[in-house]
Order: sequence, then structure tokens, then C-alpha cells
Amino acid sequence: MEQRSGGPINAAVEVLGDRWSLLILSDVIFNDRRHFRALLTGSVEGIASNILADRLVRLVEAGILTRGTAARGQRARYSITEAGVQTLPILCALGNWGLDWRSGSDELRNRQQVIRDGGPALVEDLMDELRVRHLDALPKSADGPSLLERLGAASTAAASDRPTDP
Amino acid sequence: MEQRSGGPINAAVEVLGDRWSLLILSDVIFNDRRHFRALLTGSVEGIASNILADRLVRLVEAGILTRGTAARGQRARYSITEAGVQTLPILCALGNWGLDWRSGSDELRNRQQVIRDGGPALVEDLMDELRVRHLDALPKSADGPSLLERLGAASTAAASDRPTDP
Repeated sequence: MEQRSGGPINAAVEVLGDRWSLLILSDVIFNDRRHFRALLTGSVEGIASNILADRLVRLVEAGILTRGTAARGQRARYSITEAGVQTLPILCALGNWGLDWRSGSDELRNRQQVIRDGGPALVEDLMDELRVRHLDALPKSADGPSLLERLGAASTAAASDRPTDP
Repeated sequence: MEQRSGGPINAAVEVLGDRWSLLILSDVIFNDRRHFRALLTGSVEGIASNILADRLVRLVEAGILTRGTAARGQRARYSITEAGVQTLPILCALGNWGLDWRSGSDELRNRQQVIRDGGPALVEDLMDELRVRHLDALPKSADGPSLLERLGAASTAAASDRPTDP
């Protein structure tokens, strides 16, 4: 991927300054949608399949996602890389801003409130969980439901409320 | 501005998930470019004037920028709103990611390193300075050069190094 400008913000924006890329990444991370079909049908925004295909390729080329080799008859599964794990603070900062400055569904606002209340320490814990889920890292502790599952439960509740025709 | 989806991340991405909007915002905030012409000619990425005009309108409509009424013969000046001030953690998170996962000019990397090393407290201080600069807030302290000036000095050094033809 071409890098046009000098600054780290600009360099990040080259890759992440795209609505669909951010939404896909957020869906992979928070809703554990890992397959093309799940990302396509689960998209609240109703992403078109050609846009989804294009953005998945771009995210793989940018080193943020990897596309697992599919066995016969199986669908390829996407995982986030360490660079992908480390986009979490960006997504959380976006969510905190959205919580303050935009309206939206209560369920997902509750999820974001949990993230905000947890502060940087919770974001670090979430990143550790993502490393277990996507990068085969060993879990640091195994007691109780994971943070991602707790956040995911709120997200599932919200998804069932959403209109079928976006 | 239409709000299509439920979650705070998605709602934020509707407004901020756009490369040019993020670059313009970053230029207003870190380089204090406040006029159309300055944003146009200062853009490292070589933004087209119609794109710049479009994104400025969108940022104003989204409540992130305000466009000051220009006196006779004067150019309109843009300021960030409180919602604009609070995009700083997003820009800083993007910059931290770019610092780790992308290459770039040393000067602007140094600037980002100062921001990262300062952590959330420095981001809060920067937001206070932005409120003074853009929202006529009273300064909390008046001793020494401001953080934004210190960061701006690094940015100016980097700008003089950049190629004239992007």
C-alpha cells in the first residue's frame, strides 16, 4: 500500500480512514464475524458484496487482517493480526466520541459505556482476549465469561432489535 | 446528517470514517490551518479544492467545525467545536497506531512520540489548549510555550522537508 505522507496520523488514515474498513474491522472484533457471508449478512449498514470483498483485500494487504486457507468445502476465515488488535484503541476512541456526540441504540451505548468506564486497562484486557481469539495466544486467566462475551451479549440483544431493511 | 446504525462506533464512523475529513481535522488541530486557502495549499496529500470544500461543509454540518462569518475583504475562518476538540483522542489513537505500524518522517514521528509518552493527561492538556485557541476558553496556565506550539514546531520542520509535488 502506497504511503504518501510523513505523519503517523496521515499514514494511519491512509489505511483506516475509510468508513467500510472501520465498520468491517469493528464487526470482526466485537461481533466475531469471521467469514465473508457473516460479514455480508450481519452488516447493519447493508454493505454491498463487492465493497466487502474490496475492503477485505485491502485490510489483508495492509497487514490488519489475515485470510485463513480454507479446507475443502470450508469457507475462508479472517483473523486480525497484531496490527489489527492494536486498532482497538482507535475503535474505542471512536465509540467514546459517538457516545457523547451521537444518538443510537441503548444496548450498544451500554456496551460502549462499559468500555469507557473500564478505561485503558479494559482496552488492554480486550486486546489480550483478541490475541487469544485471533492469534492463538494463551489466555491469561480462565475464570468467568470473557469481556468480549459480555460485550457481545449486549451486541446480540441490539442486533435482534434492528430493522431488517436498513 | 443521517444516522443509519445503532452503535456509537458506527455513528462516529458515519462522520469521521473518511480519509479527507480526518486529514483536514488533523490539519486544523495540529497545524492551526484555519482558512480554506491554507488548508488547500498546506495539504501534504494535495487535496482538490472541490473535495476540501465538500468536506468542510460536511464537518460544519456534523457539528465538528464552525465557519466564522467573514468581515468585508476577509476570509472565513474555521474553528473546531467542543465535539471537534473531543476528536483529539481519536486522532492521537490513529497516530499511535501509525507510529507502530507505518513508517514516515522522523519529525512527525517525534511529535507523535511526545503525544504517546504524555499519555491521556497530555491529551487532556492539548484539549484544554484547543479550547483556548478555538473556543475562547481562558487558559489554565500562561507560562512557557504551549504544547501545541511545541508540537507545531516539529510539524513546521517536517513540512519544509516535504516534496513540493505530492
